[in-house]
Amino acid sequence: MTASRFDVLGIGNAIVDVLSPADDAFLDREGLVKGSMTLIDAAAAEALYGRMAAGVEASGGSAANTLAGIAGLGGAAAFVGRVRDDALGKVFAHDIRAVGVSFESAAASEGPGTARCLVMVTPDAQRTMATYLGACVGLGPDDVDPGLVASAEITYLEGYLWDPENGKAAFRKAITCAHEAGRRVALSLSDAFCVHRWRAEFLDLVSAGGVDILFANEGEISALFETGDFDTALQATRALGITAALTRSEKGSVILGGDEVHVIDAAVPEKVIDSTGAGDLYAAGFLFGLTHDLGLARSARLGSLCAAEVLSHYGPRPQVNLADFVVGRY
Amino acid sequence: MTASRFDVLGIGNAIVDVLSPADDAFLDREGLVKGSMTLIDAAAAEALYGRMAAGVEASGGSAANTLAGIAGLGGAAAFVGRVRDDALGKVFAHDIRAVGVSFESAAASEGPGTARCLVMVTPDAQRTMATYLGACVGLGPDDVDPGLVASAEITYLEGYLWDPENGKAAFRKAITCAHEAGRRVALSLSDAFCVHRWRAEFLDLVSAGGVDILFANEGEISALFETGDFDTALQATRALGITAALTRSEKGSVILGGDEVHVIDAAVPEKVIDSTGAGDLYAAGFLFGLTHDLGLARSARLGSLCAAEVLSHYGPRPQVNLADFVVGRY
Repeated sequence: MTASRFDVLGIGNAIVDVLSPADDAFLDREGLVKGSMTLIDAAAAEALYGRMAAGVEASGGSAANTLAGIAGLGGAAAFVGRVRDDALGKVFAHDIRAVGVSFESAAASEGPGTARCLVMVTPDAQRTMATYLGACVGLGPDDVDPGLVASAEITYLEGYLWDPENGKAAFRKAITCAHEAGRRVALSLSDAFCVHRWRAEFLDLVSAGGVDILFANEGEISALFETGDFDTALQATRALGITAALTRSEKGSVILGGDEVHVIDAAVPEKVIDSTGAGDLYAAGFLFGLTHDLGLARSARLGSLCAAEVLSHYGPRPQVNLADFVVGRY
Repeated sequence: MTASRFDVLGIGNAIVDVLSPADDAFLDREGLVKGSMTLIDAAAAEALYGRMAAGVEASGGSAANTLAGIAGLGGAAAFVGRVRDDALGKVFAHDIRAVGVSFESAAASEGPGTARCLVMVTPDAQRTMATYLGACVGLGPDDVDPGLVASAEITYLEGYLWDPENGKAAFRKAITCAHEAGRRVALSLSDAFCVHRWRAEFLDLVSAGGVDILFANEGEISALFETGDFDTALQATRALGITAALTRSEKGSVILGGDEVHVIDAAVPEKVIDSTGAGDLYAAGFLFGLTHDLGLARSARLGSLCAAEVLSHYGPRPQVNLADFVVGRY
């Protein structure tokens, strides 16, 4: 195995977020379940956007946020995702490159436009998302370059990729390429509803050795193992024998790996404003730690700190120099 | 090893509590640290009692509360503790027998009176204690009957016993008797300040195999291992290789035993009124579970439920039929 060019390569949906404040009544009227991600089509996105309050636009996408965080910490990061050659596509490409992530995916010159995620942030700092996948649905195996995958110590996949049909094939190809090159694969389960949609397939994937590092929040891991009890989900995860980071919001996180079990407190910002990107940034810190030999506990503490930064403001990516923000604190 | 007559034998301070509401300013004026237990003499107890608000009296004592809980769950429970033949001593003996705990310790006919713990409950449901040990200071090795210890599956000791000089000797004798009879010893660290006072000795005790089952809250286990980080304390506890229940208030508990690690949620009552006895009742549920082959996770859930009952009202012991309260819930 040659030295790696990248610490982490992320493959996911390339999305520009539109964040607006909303109240619970608005979510009810729109038939949206708080905290979840719903897939919508172009027409529904246009209509919902018309009813949303004035907001801000910011490059997002779950794995993309994670890679932006890794670059912010000083890690060598690359991202693969599909945009259209439109205004939003340019914004996405500009923003991810501006934070130092290598992004070489060519913009599509035809087909649906760049993906948009309409994010409604309620006063309790929860975010509820409606995503128009647009150009992302075209992401397929051809977008996965075996050489690029082999050049990254860890390839990080978001569970949302399992929704578009081609995404699955890209996902499987990336796993095969990574493992053939002796590299590791990380997976985020992304969303409890996404896990419900693809439970059996995700379970097959993690049980059959496809995933070396699993990220899941409490709702997602509970959905995967069909239990309402965290400890039951924890024991089932432990039986998989892989590295896992189970995040529990203000309850902190539980980390499994080999014989190790760590219980790590959350890093709580003075005021929690918006949870968009919190899980993504936790993954950023954890993956940076794993690829810099920090060990499981310090990696998790770093993840918690990165999540705290993004919880403290509107928007899914860090607004300060992340390396400075965490220095000496984990 | 013959069949056990008792599931659990508790050895501890036999105390009657006086519970009164208080505010933070009162604690400050009295020089008391919120959440802690301070030892005071008879004169100081008299003076403090005179300044406290009107309250209620209730039999208490940490291990005694635990044994009352075990009996309430239907377990076979015995308690050893020293009272004087005075009015409070009669109250203590009456109350612990009334809930079904075997209590055969003879009341002292001379010396200091029955112990009193002045418990100030602040509006945040925290309890701050000032204890006049009285007759308890006389508890010594002669009070430990080897036959009684041998007849109990687990002998449960409270860390507070380490404060009076004779208590230590009683403590060590109980451990020797239990282990010679092939029985297990459980220890509660009782209080972070108590751990500070006796840190090296407690650490020797648990490191040298004196304790099979350890109870500690987050402050106590952090004090034992001189760390401010829960996961660091957790890893140090795990290295001891014993069964341990680490309680974290609303963050739930973490259970270690053999290769098992469980993360159990707290059972939270609708309204938390008074934390007096919460740790004691957690230990009750856990020890009942261990002596009834419920396994670590179910035992911890039972402990959480028992703690929730006592959190929901003023006073250190259950006010409902505990077996009915928990049925079907763990």
